[in-house]
This record gives sequence, C-alpha cells and structure tokens, in this order.
Amino acid sequence: MGHTHPTVADASDITIGPIRGSHKAWVGTTGPAGEPLRVPVRRIELTNGEHLDVYDTSGPYTSYTTAAEVHDLAVGLPRLREDWSRPHAVPADPAQPSSPRVRTQLAWARNGVTTPEMAFIAAREGLSVDVLRAEVAAGRAVIPANHRHPEAEPMVIGKKFAVKVNANIGNSVVRSSIAEEVEKMVWATRWGADTIMDLSTGRDIHLTREWILRNSPVPLGTVPIYQALEKVDGDPTALTWEIYRDTVIEQAEQGVDYMTVHAGVLLRYVPLAARRVTGIVSRGGSIMAAWCLAHHTESFLYTHFAELCDILAAYDITFSLGDGLRPGSIADANDEAQLAELRTLGELTRIAKGRGVQVMIEGPGHVPMHKIVENVRLEEEWCDEAPFYTLGPLATDIAPGYDHITSAIGAAMIAQAGTAMLCYVTPKEHLGLPDRDDVKVGVITYKIAAHSADLAKAHPGAQLRDDALSRARFEFRWQDQFNLGLDPDTAVAFHDETLPAEPAKNAHFCSMCGPKFCSMRISQDVRDYAETHGLTSVEAIEAGMAEKSAEFVDQGARVYLPVVD
Amino acid sequence: MGHTHPTVADASDITIGPIRGSHKAWVGTTGPAGEPLRVPVRRIELTNGEHLDVYDTSGPYTSYTTAAEVHDLAVGLPRLREDWSRPHAVPADPAQPSSPRVRTQLAWARNGVTTPEMAFIAAREGLSVDVLRAEVAAGRAVIPANHRHPEAEPMVIGKKFAVKVNANIGNSVVRSSIAEEVEKMVWATRWGADTIMDLSTGRDIHLTREWILRNSPVPLGTVPIYQALEKVDGDPTALTWEIYRDTVIEQAEQGVDYMTVHAGVLLRYVPLAARRVTGIVSRGGSIMAAWCLAHHTESFLYTHFAELCDILAAYDITFSLGDGLRPGSIADANDEAQLAELRTLGELTRIAKGRGVQVMIEGPGHVPMHKIVENVRLEEEWCDEAPFYTLGPLATDIAPGYDHITSAIGAAMIAQAGTAMLCYVTPKEHLGLPDRDDVKVGVITYKIAAHSADLAKAHPGAQLRDDALSRARFEFRWQDQFNLGLDPDTAVAFHDETLPAEPAKNAHFCSMCGPKFCSMRISQDVRDYAETHGLTSVEAIEAGMAEKSAEFVDQGARVYLPVVD
Repeated sequence: MGHTHPTVADASDITIGPIRGSHKAWVGTTGPAGEPLRVPVRRIELTNGEHLDVYDTSGPYTSYTTAAEVHDLAVGLPRLREDWSRPHAVPADPAQPSSPRVRTQLAWARNGVTTPEMAFIAAREGLSVDVLRAEVAAGRAVIPANHRHPEAEPMVIGKKFAVKVNANIGNSVVRSSIAEEVEKMVWATRWGADTIMDLSTGRDIHLTREWILRNSPVPLGTVPIYQALEKVDGDPTALTWEIYRDTVIEQAEQGVDYMTVHAGVLLRYVPLAARRVTGIVSRGGSIMAAWCLAHHTESFLYTHFAELCDILAAYDITFSLGDGLRPGSIADANDEAQLAELRTLGELTRIAKGRGVQVMIEGPGHVPMHKIVENVRLEEEWCDEAPFYTLGPLATDIAPGYDHITSAIGAAMIAQAGTAMLCYVTPKEHLGLPDRDDVKVGVITYKIAAHSADLAKAHPGAQLRDDALSRARFEFRWQDQFNLGLDPDTAVAFHDETLPAEPAKNAHFCSMCGPKFCSMRISQDVRDYAETHGLTSVEAIEAGMAEKSAEFVDQGARVYLPVVD
Repeated sequence: MGHTHPTVADASDITIGPIRGSHKAWVGTTGPAGEPLRVPVRRIELTNGEHLDVYDTSGPYTSYTTAAEVHDLAVGLPRLREDWSRPHAVPADPAQPSSPRVRTQLAWARNGVTTPEMAFIAAREGLSVDVLRAEVAAGRAVIPANHRHPEAEPMVIGKKFAVKVNANIGNSVVRSSIAEEVEKMVWATRWGADTIMDLSTGRDIHLTREWILRNSPVPLGTVPIYQALEKVDGDPTALTWEIYRDTVIEQAEQGVDYMTVHAGVLLRYVPLAARRVTGIVSRGGSIMAAWCLAHHTESFLYTHFAELCDILAAYDITFSLGDGLRPGSIADANDEAQLAELRTLGELTRIAKGRGVQVMIEGPGHVPMHKIVENVRLEEEWCDEAPFYTLGPLATDIAPGYDHITSAIGAAMIAQAGTAMLCYVTPKEHLGLPDRDDVKVGVITYKIAAHSADLAKAHPGAQLRDDALSRARFEFRWQDQFNLGLDPDTAVAFHDETLPAEPAKNAHFCSMCGPKFCSMRISQDVRDYAETHGLTSVEAIEAGMAEKSAEFVDQGARVYLPVVD
C-alpha cells in the first residue's frame, strides 16, 4: 500500500499494552541467507524469578504502552517481510517437468529451498526447519503468506505443529464500522487468534479489508464469493466467472493470505442436500447451489478451477477449499452430501498442488462425538492429508447461547485426531453477531481446545505451561497462577469476587475450602514431612514410618496452617 | 422430619415458575403393585402445535406460579415416596446364603423384586423396568434413595441410562447463608442438576443440610468427613472412627442419599502422592493422608469398612467411593498413586456389594485427552463396572476462569466412554466459591457434556431434541429454537442484543448474514423447488433438471427472499 487512507480508525479505537504479568520479547534466529530474524514471544515473568515464553500472535500492539507509540493505522504495520529474500520461481512440482514455475512456499519446499518464512516458523514452533519444509513439501502443512501481505508474521498450519485457531470477524448490513472491525482483529490476536477471517458482507467491504490487512500481524482469510455477490446486488444467479475472478484478483492484490472457495458444490450434489434436516448452511455453499440450480450447469468455480489456481499461485495465496455442504445439524452429520463434496475436494486438492498452490480443507460443522474421528480419517485419505480446518464441530444442537462450548468439545476431539486449525465459534453463534466480549470468549475457548489437543498429541513443550501453572497453584503463588492462564484478567476478577483483599493473593488457602480444609496446604505439609524424612517410596514408609510418625505428632502434626503470609 | 424449623428461608428466597416456553407435566405409569405413579416431565410447547417432553429434575418449583403456592420450606416438599410400598428385607446377595438380609435397591434387584422406584425410573428414562432391574442387580447402576429422604424423585445412575450431572453447593467459613444454599439447590435443579452434593464446611452444617434435604427433589450427597473434622476443630489427627461413625449416622438419619468415603487412601500410598506436582488435591484425601501419617496406622475408613457398609445398608445409602488421590494436574494424571487407590476401591466395591450396599466410584480430576479412556477401562475392570462418577476431568490446566470449559471437554469424552455421572465444574473452580450465575453456567455446561455423550452412545430418544431444535432453526421458528435449548433466557437475550425488534423473531434471516446472505433461506428455496419438481435424487436431477432449471429462472429464481412475515 503506497498511499494512506482517510483515518477511520486511530489509536484510541484499539487495545494496546501487555497482557497482565507478561511483556513482549523476541527470540533471535537466522534466515537461510544468515540474515537475523526476530521471533516474537510473550514472556510471562514469575514471582519465583523464572519466566515462561509462550507463542505470541499479538503483533506490536502488546508492546505499545501509550497511544503515542502506536503506528499510523492509516499506513499500517511495519512491512516485516518486505526485505526478506524471496527465492526465484521454481517448478511447481519438480517431479512433473511440465508443471508451471511458481513462487510459492509449496514449490520452494518441494525444490528443497528453505525460505525465511520457514526459518522464522521453525523457531516459532520449536521444531527443526527440515521437518517443517518436509511437511510443507508433502502438502501436510501450509504457510499462508501472500507476497502482498508483508506485515504478517509467518505461521504454519499442519498437524505436526501446534493446533491453530481462526477468529471470524466482519460486518454485515445490520451492524459494525471499520474501526470496530480493526479493533476486533487486534483484540482477537491479543488473545491468541492465529489467523483472522474477514467475512464482511455489509458496506465498504474493500476498504474494511484494506484496514484490517495493513494492520494485521496474522494471515487474513476471506470468502471472495461474498464480495462478488455484493457486486451483483445479492442475486446469486447473476454471478459469473468473470465477476468472481476479478474479485479474487482485487483481494489478491490487497494481500489476502487464504481464500475459501466452495468449488466442491457440484450440481449433482444439490438434491442430496435438499433432503436434509437443515439443508445447506454454508453461505457460499447455498449461493453456489442456487447458481447451479438456476443455470443447470456445473459450478464455475469447478469448471474454472485450474485458472483460479494460477491466480492464487502468482501471489502464493492458500486455498481453503470450502465445505459448502457441511452438515448444519447432528441429523445431517457425515451424510452423502457432505462426503460426496469431500471426495471432490480431494480431486481439487491434487489439481491445486500440481500447480504449486497450497491447500487446506474445510470441515464441519455439527457432528456427534462418535462420528468425529471418521471425518479426519476420510479427509486425510481422500485429500492427501492436506491440513484440515474445521468449524467446531458442535457435538450437540441443543444449546444456543453456549455453542462455543458445544463446539469446543468437538473441536478438541477433532484436533486430537489431526485437525490442524480450528475456526472458533462464539456464544452468539446462531443468534447474533459477536461483540468484543464474544470474540474474546470464543478465542479463549478455542485456545483451550487447541491446547488440549496439543497435550494429547504430545506437541513438544506444550505441557510446560500446564506444569508451570500447576506448580504455581500448589505453591500458592496466586499471581503466577493467574498470569500463566490464558486470561489473567478474568482469573483475577473471579478470585477477587470472593477474597478481594490483596494479602489473600498470597494466602496459603483459598475461598473454596478456607484455611482448615485446604487440601493443598495439608498435602504440602505431608510432602514436606515425607521428604524431610526420606519417606519417598512405599518401601521407605513401610520400613521407617512407625518412629517417624511419632516424631510428626511431636512436632505438632503441622498438617494444616491457617497462615497468611 | 416431624417438626418444623424456625424459618431461615422462605418463598421469596427461591426461584419459581416455569422455564420459558415450557410447563411442568406428568406422565402416568404404574408401580409393581399396580399403584399409579406420576413421572414429571418438562413439556416444551412449539409454535407448530407439536410439543417435546424432556427429562425434568426441577421438582414442584417450576409448577409454582406465585409465592403463595410455594410449600412451607420449613416443613419441606411433599413426601412423595412415603406411601410407596417398601418390600421386606431380603438377602443382600441371594447367591451367598450367609449374606445379611437388607432393604436396598441392590438386594431387591438381585432377588428379582421390582420396587416402585424402579418402575418410576423406567418410565422416566423410557427404558424397560427389566433392563433397569438387571443393571441394578449387576451393580452397573445405582438408585441413590435413602429411606429417610422420601421427598426425592427416584433416578438412576448407570452407563445404560442418560448421563447424569451433579452440582456441588455448600457454604464455607468464608461465605454463604442457609437461604442462599437452598436457593442454589433449587436453582441448580431448575437447570437440570440430577443430584446435589452439599459440601458445606462452615457454620450450621447440620441445619443447612436439613433445609436442603427437606426441600430437594433430587438425591443429596455429602462427604461426612468434612463435618467430622468440624467436630474435632479442624485437626485431622484428632479424628476417630467413633466420631466419624456418629457423623455418618447423624447424616443417614437426616436422609442423605449417597456419601463420599475416601476409604482407598491407604498409608502406603501417601508417599506416592508426595512426589507429585500437585500432591493431594482432594480435601477428604488429604485429611485421611494426614491422619494415616500422624498415627502410622491404616485408615479407619478402611479398617472399619464392613461396619460402615452395614450402617449404609440400613438406610439404603449409596457409597460414592472417593478418589482421595485423584490427580490435581495434567502432570499427575493416571499415576501410580491414582491407580493404586483405584485398585483398592475395587476391593472395597466387592465388600460393599456383598453386604447389599450400592456403590459408585469417583474419578478424576485433571486428565489430558489421550489418557481419558484408560480411566474408564481400568475402573470397569477393577471395580466390576460400578457406575463411574467423575469430576470433569479438566483436559488442560492453563485456563483458570474457564475450567467449566476445560473440564466439559474431558467430561464429554469420559461420559462417551462410559462414565455414568459427571460432577460439574464452574467458572470459579480454583479461584473462588461459585455464585448463582456460576452454578447455572456450570450446570448448563455439564448438561451439554452429558447430552453430547448421550448422542454418541445413541441413548434412546436423545437426538429428538437436537432434531426438533434444528428443524425449528431451519424453518425460522425462532421462539421454538430458543425454547428447545438448554437455556432459553440466554438465547433470547443474545438474539435481542443484535435484533431486538419483535418481528425479527419471525424473520426469515438473522443478524449474522442479513437477508441477502441467508444460507438457510436460500437452502429452503432450493429444497422447495427440488421437492416440488421431484428432484430428490442424483438420477432425477441428472435426467430432468435441464428443463426444470429454465422454469426455476422463469419463476423468478426465488433463491433468497428478504421477507419479514
């Protein structure tokens, strides 16, 4: 972006400053040409002198302490990747001599080229760059990084890496302003959103996206058919390939990193969805179904797919092949319509990869627990293990107002089974547009699901944070317990509702049990006693405990201590 | 209770009236002697003239419409079971001639006797009484129903039945009054709590429990060691079997339906826990560990277990064998301490059942997803499939303030694997005492986990509610969508934040997409068109679609309709 826009959002509209108990830091690494790279982390400082660095998605916003420090939002973030070396075009698939020469992370990886983005991400994930490059080369991981979005900090989506979370934002005709959407992006990435999707369907779609892109430290995804539909005044039957293509190019030029394309909604699948309890619940899917039906011809997204691949390859935009026929209810899960489309997405995956385009596959939606693993198995089998990117899924339909929770259950399970990125669901799902609080609850809830899956998959280092927090909890380091959590502000607020006094934050008990009933206090005394006396095994206690126990009682049997220190 | 107490809670303290869009109803059935029984349901009336009956735990409170109708809380609820036939004492285990003669649901079931409670529950669950009696006889299900708690409506806990949810309430020295605790019980059962545990450790433990019991429509559980500890001024080393026994009898006489007993915390297991990241996190477990350590002798709960069984048998109180060594962190999950205790609980289970006492087994706690199923497998193997009753488990430690969610993930998975009852966790877990709002969020969250498991286990009829809600959603019956949910009030409030106007509740779109982008609207048009023209199969559409599509366009291609009707 060589020019600036009239200011529609400024520093007063956005949230800045560090998250409680932490500050932004950078860890150095080097790029493939030896160039220094700085990888951001959030450093949580503990009261015992230790610290824990955690993955950080918040960009510079958490390093600003005053509004005066904030960059000019009308210009955008520093263009981090602009000076990084970008290797030359290489064959999309070196095993196929006729494949086009492109400049995408997939093609580079296949040709054995390590990019600065790969070096950055390897350090960020704590894994070797060789593993990363191999996963990208195999199409099991993607690095969504449009050449025209140099502001974004590179990240990877793939099942060998930390499970990622996407947050949807975007206005509709009913609500919202550009400033609000920019703040939602800043706010969502503050709490850990790894990517943002701008799903705007209201006024100023182009300008809203421009403001978000220029200020986003994470990759941005869109669904271009929404804007294309706006261009034909909302009449799906008036859509054409040309209008769609021009919209894709417009967004590509702006820097969109990945695009949802519902190219698997084929004419012959439409009747399958008509028999469902909830029909077609994907906006893009229903638009394309209506178009196919009205024209009685195959979807232009399908018939022009190779051409679309070449546009995306030119920018290194990643496909997010949309599940336009995903189930919208428990009753429709894993049905013929859904699975027929998934097979077609597999076919499209192979076409895209052959042309050097990175691909991920979108997944459901609404799925009961016993049908969740099957979704991952079929996706991996039919789509050559392209990263799976699911919306939840909701494990039941019966809790509107709590669908962040119904879906966190499904999300954690599907991520454990191999899903690489989870699209969040907020408490407002099915009911209204999320506000700022809903966005936060949605992100935190999905960080829980993603991290639970990281633990279950034994992702390197994932358990360090759990262990640090649990040690803090056991040692009554209340501030550390709060600050090591995903949302320190809420933890402190909840604690203070019952025991607001400052000394209570150092108390060796809490409000749940009070001092006399504190199991942790008693347990610590037991441990101290056992360790002091070498009673750390079954054998030791059997052998030496009789005399020791008398001594324990003599010492006052300090099994609880109502101490506030 | 033949007398009344000074009024410390009255109708103005509690929540009454039906849940939005529903009213209490009763379904008739007959007892074993042909006596009429009335099983409560909550009837949700739909705008299309249909209704859906759902399981109801709320007692008469949701049938009262004015404070004047409320029964005298100082006297208590009508004594529903008082007039029911109670069969004679029978051998605890008819296969063992020397077994004592008792009057428990287990013994009756083993002797082929159908009780009124069994008949009531079979109708309530929609399953045959023969299946129920067989499950109880096998010890795979329990009916917690102290003869002295006739106010409670019978229910079953077992893996063949709907997954149940327990809500903990109770004061501590830090907070709360009797009136507050009674309201928490009414409030928790309103939203679906199947049992209540009173964990009071503060003032007036006996009187608080009396008020809760007399007014509770669901079984009540306690942890008698808490009150016993109060009696020795909070010094665990001063506890004796006699003080504990007298406390159990005191609570048994009041009508407590099930009791948590940490009889598996053996002296030799204590050092195992001392090496953990979070030691012993169970209050009861830490109390018994301290006692064992101080006296260097085996737990009196273990050495007097048979005597304890005979007390519980006399009232038909169900054991909830406590997991005093459950893990309190991800790091400690499935460790030697936890599993050693579980084996001992299996040994105790066989003793209890041999004496006719019903048993369930308590489980963790904090467990990463990949270690959850193992907990159920070992519990079933070692404890003869006694119903498992777990606290969550939390799938990660890193989200204080959101532990209802971290644990709902684990709870849903462990219930899918066979856990029969889930003890809720509220957002205040680890931070403070839950208030009324926290209790509601905890119960709703756990109803989600339980219902998700019911769906995954294909529990008969479970999916009816999902399907009814999804149909309402697809047909834009907004009021029905709200009312079929677990929490209609919150659903309505969330909807109204974005689109408050009353007509919007009939709108054929919602605030998420606005009228033009409504996938459901488009999808309905597609379905209407396909059905009208017989295009309901791939073959039909391939064969007959070309001419039909022209017709579809001629008719105006009604694929969206921004209609508010």
